[in-house]
Amino acid sequence: MAPAEPNAPPFRPKGKLPHFEDELEGWKGYIEWEKYPEKKKQVEEILKQYDFPDPPEFQLVPLPKTNPILTGERFKQYHYATGLGHLVDTSWQYVLKEKAEDMVHVLQFPYNGEPPGDRLVSTEITRNEDFFVRNHGGVPEIDADKYFLEIDGLVNNPKRLTLADLQNEELFPRETKVVSLQCSGTRRLEQIRQYPGDGDELINAPWGEGAIGTARWTGVSLKKVIKYCGGLKDGAKHIELFGADTYFKKGKVYNYVVSIPWRKVKIHEVLLAWEMNGKPLPKIHGFPLRAVVYGYIGARSCKWLYRIRGITDPSEAPVQRKEYLYYTPQIGKQNALYSNGFSIQDMPVSSAIISPKDMDVITHDGKVKLRGWAFSGGGHWPIRVEVSPDGGAIWYEVPTENMSTKYYYAWRLWEIDLPLDPEGWLEFCVRTWDNAMNTQPTYVRSAWNWDLHVTSSCHRIRVYSVNRSKPLTAARLKALEEHGIPLTPITKPLPIELETDEQYQASMAEQRGRDPLE
Amino acid sequence: MAPAEPNAPPFRPKGKLPHFEDELEGWKGYIEWEKYPEKKKQVEEILKQYDFPDPPEFQLVPLPKTNPILTGERFKQYHYATGLGHLVDTSWQYVLKEKAEDMVHVLQFPYNGEPPGDRLVSTEITRNEDFFVRNHGGVPEIDADKYFLEIDGLVNNPKRLTLADLQNEELFPRETKVVSLQCSGTRRLEQIRQYPGDGDELINAPWGEGAIGTARWTGVSLKKVIKYCGGLKDGAKHIELFGADTYFKKGKVYNYVVSIPWRKVKIHEVLLAWEMNGKPLPKIHGFPLRAVVYGYIGARSCKWLYRIRGITDPSEAPVQRKEYLYYTPQIGKQNALYSNGFSIQDMPVSSAIISPKDMDVITHDGKVKLRGWAFSGGGHWPIRVEVSPDGGAIWYEVPTENMSTKYYYAWRLWEIDLPLDPEGWLEFCVRTWDNAMNTQPTYVRSAWNWDLHVTSSCHRIRVYSVNRSKPLTAARLKALEEHGIPLTPITKPLPIELETDEQYQASMAEQRGRDPLE
Repeated sequence: MAPAEPNAPPFRPKGKLPHFEDELEGWKGYIEWEKYPEKKKQVEEILKQYDFPDPPEFQLVPLPKTNPILTGERFKQYHYATGLGHLVDTSWQYVLKEKAEDMVHVLQFPYNGEPPGDRLVSTEITRNEDFFVRNHGGVPEIDADKYFLEIDGLVNNPKRLTLADLQNEELFPRETKVVSLQCSGTRRLEQIRQYPGDGDELINAPWGEGAIGTARWTGVSLKKVIKYCGGLKDGAKHIELFGADTYFKKGKVYNYVVSIPWRKVKIHEVLLAWEMNGKPLPKIHGFPLRAVVYGYIGARSCKWLYRIRGITDPSEAPVQRKEYLYYTPQIGKQNALYSNGFSIQDMPVSSAIISPKDMDVITHDGKVKLRGWAFSGGGHWPIRVEVSPDGGAIWYEVPTENMSTKYYYAWRLWEIDLPLDPEGWLEFCVRTWDNAMNTQPTYVRSAWNWDLHVTSSCHRIRVYSVNRSKPLTAARLKALEEHGIPLTPITKPLPIELETDEQYQASMAEQRGRDPLE
Repeated sequence: MAPAEPNAPPFRPKGKLPHFEDELEGWKGYIEWEKYPEKKKQVEEILKQYDFPDPPEFQLVPLPKTNPILTGERFKQYHYATGLGHLVDTSWQYVLKEKAEDMVHVLQFPYNGEPPGDRLVSTEITRNEDFFVRNHGGVPEIDADKYFLEIDGLVNNPKRLTLADLQNEELFPRETKVVSLQCSGTRRLEQIRQYPGDGDELINAPWGEGAIGTARWTGVSLKKVIKYCGGLKDGAKHIELFGADTYFKKGKVYNYVVSIPWRKVKIHEVLLAWEMNGKPLPKIHGFPLRAVVYGYIGARSCKWLYRIRGITDPSEAPVQRKEYLYYTPQIGKQNALYSNGFSIQDMPVSSAIISPKDMDVITHDGKVKLRGWAFSGGGHWPIRVEVSPDGGAIWYEVPTENMSTKYYYAWRLWEIDLPLDPEGWLEFCVRTWDNAMNTQPTYVRSAWNWDLHVTSSCHRIRVYSVNRSKPLTAARLKALEEHGIPLTPITKPLPIELETDEQYQASMAEQRGRDPLE
């Protein structure tokens, strides 16, 4: 494991650690909490005894440049204190095993990571090892042949289905669909940098532009499974999804539970998937079975799915009711309620410039290539992408032929050769229109919100333009080369004179001096 | 002395250090360079032998939170290498002796420092110990009774005047004038934070809002002195001012030399001052004599003034010709020349909010007090100050009775009780109109320039508003108090629930649930 956070206090148990048996044979790291209030109570009592370290402050101070960026000490200690410490290590082993070596590890535990930008937009379909991960707890290890899915609540015939049942094409037609998943925290860094917001104890991770990815998912439509269970009972309007991971919040313990409206299931927009790009789901992505909810915030695409329940109203579980809420900008610590933020489900239209990167110095001859992604949730698709070289006064349309395939549920990658005359610091930005003419808020400030979710404002980057086709610039670049002086960092003082005395005098003569003559 | 920069390499002389005698008896730390090209050449040869540490990178990485913020290792080493190392220590001793204990030491050597904001706007006239200092070299120690001023060049009768001569009211009428001095680097931090710029080897210090101050200066009008020398010869249009401090640039050594147009002198806007607020000039502010150039950039108000010269064109000295240039935003490392930036002389209209501070969390009952300064150079005065609670859509005028005295050459302090309803992160900004209807550029970006001078754009701060007169907020503040939970830092997660189950259910009932019913 990578080194822990410097000065992280070592964990000292208070008394004997509890021992929670794994729930079932072949289900390592899964503890069933929702059915056992007394076990939950026991954990609550244990947690009360400890004074856990505060979540790290990373909004008011600069983020560490380490990788992992944050270690998640508090969550590690929750696990240590409740006898689940082994999950900290086994989960990290899956990061090392299943994810690309150069992932940006935003949070070590629970694991959150995104791929480097270059690879993010190198392929329309994201490689499994590059796909972002936003976990809320440790990684359960469930044997495929011991796995089963329970369907109960307001369904007419509650059932228990094995993976083999689900994969039995005589019972359920198999489906493969190209679907993007996006964390509502994508581009959160931009909100943080403008105004700090809520610091959740389960860290609202400081994501860049990479908490989005697209895969070809294979599984069965949840609607078929519900139908196989005799359909829903009267009054059932929502479907609750239970994940085998353990989730801590404000001194209590839960399984990871969310819900989606039946309406969404009914139109075949919820897949129970066991394959990701033609391979079994990686453990870290929910093996053996996860939900894939098209066009919704990633949080609803429950991993390690072990139970599905028909219910009347949205789930009362904390992830659904208390998390992933979208507040108006004037709501914050002083007045936020669970009921005055709305629940994030469908994702809005959004996009990002991935290359160049913020703060890049670009030497060019009058054209600069920009690349990025564009996405819209809720079954909409990006229909036009526009980029601006000047902060949003002039917009160039990305030519259609430079945009990847249209899908109902997936992003489009794009690139453009942007004509560029001016030099110096410029603000490049991108906005996308979806097929319903939705476009993006103008500034981060336009849609800043307390929980720092859904940074869908026009993505803006600062680039320093050096246009080699300008004679003065060409001359300076030549001089730098002759003296062996690199152009960057641009803040490093030039040791050479900017012009000769003769050039200066000639220019002054032409300007007729610094001051007026009369 | 405060601790040096961590990891600063210790200085190792290469061979025997040169010994430059102090020029004159009673003039410690003054070396005359301008009259001795061979001595300059000798220093140039010495400097070539060393590989000095790079100026610190503080634009691409966060600034240290130490005080001093920057230590000036490179400039210290220039002095060590040329046998002037004692200036490093003696200069710092004057900081400790003459400046307030809680100055923000922006750069240790050459000393640059500004007062804490609260004191900056507590008095119309800045106390000497609070007055900002922007030095370019060490502090020379000149005995008043050994001091003399040389006046030569294109004057009809070159003369040498002692301090007693200048103070002889039979020769020169004495004048006292309230004048603000402002460093063109004031508020540079805002430019740096948006886009990094030129990193000068004599650090373009990362100033806040405090590189401005106002004093009552006493001395004689330079015009009278020139007249006493028989006036200028034909063709003389500029006056060169020589400071006794030593100035290094690009491997060469100089005295600190600048110039001002005769036109400015003629209208009695240049004072040779020996008193600051009724006391002899502090050593660090130019004792025994300095220029005070009204309405101009502070850099022209030459300290430790020992020579005045009539010349035909602006000074060719590097401070005048190569520094304090104002570039168009598209000029930078790739194309900057000394001749394509214009020379900063008159200062434009500008202002700043000093209280509250950027990132403050303000709990209030619907009104917030704002305080700050406003200034315009060139003989103009701030005639109206306007503040905006919303980034510049709505502007409230500061009532006239809340503005300090009008002066032709000084700032005005102001305060306003700003009506404030909204909560959350707000952008407060200020703009000032001077009597010629000049006002400030809208955004930092509007006037960003390569050398990061003259940040005169509307000053903007981020404040987090908590309005106690709102019932939800009042209830939350009460709950926090009952639980002993501080409101700040706002990023620290709340350990308590945001509302009870009953409140949530009632709110959901009122909203008729999260989703539409049909």
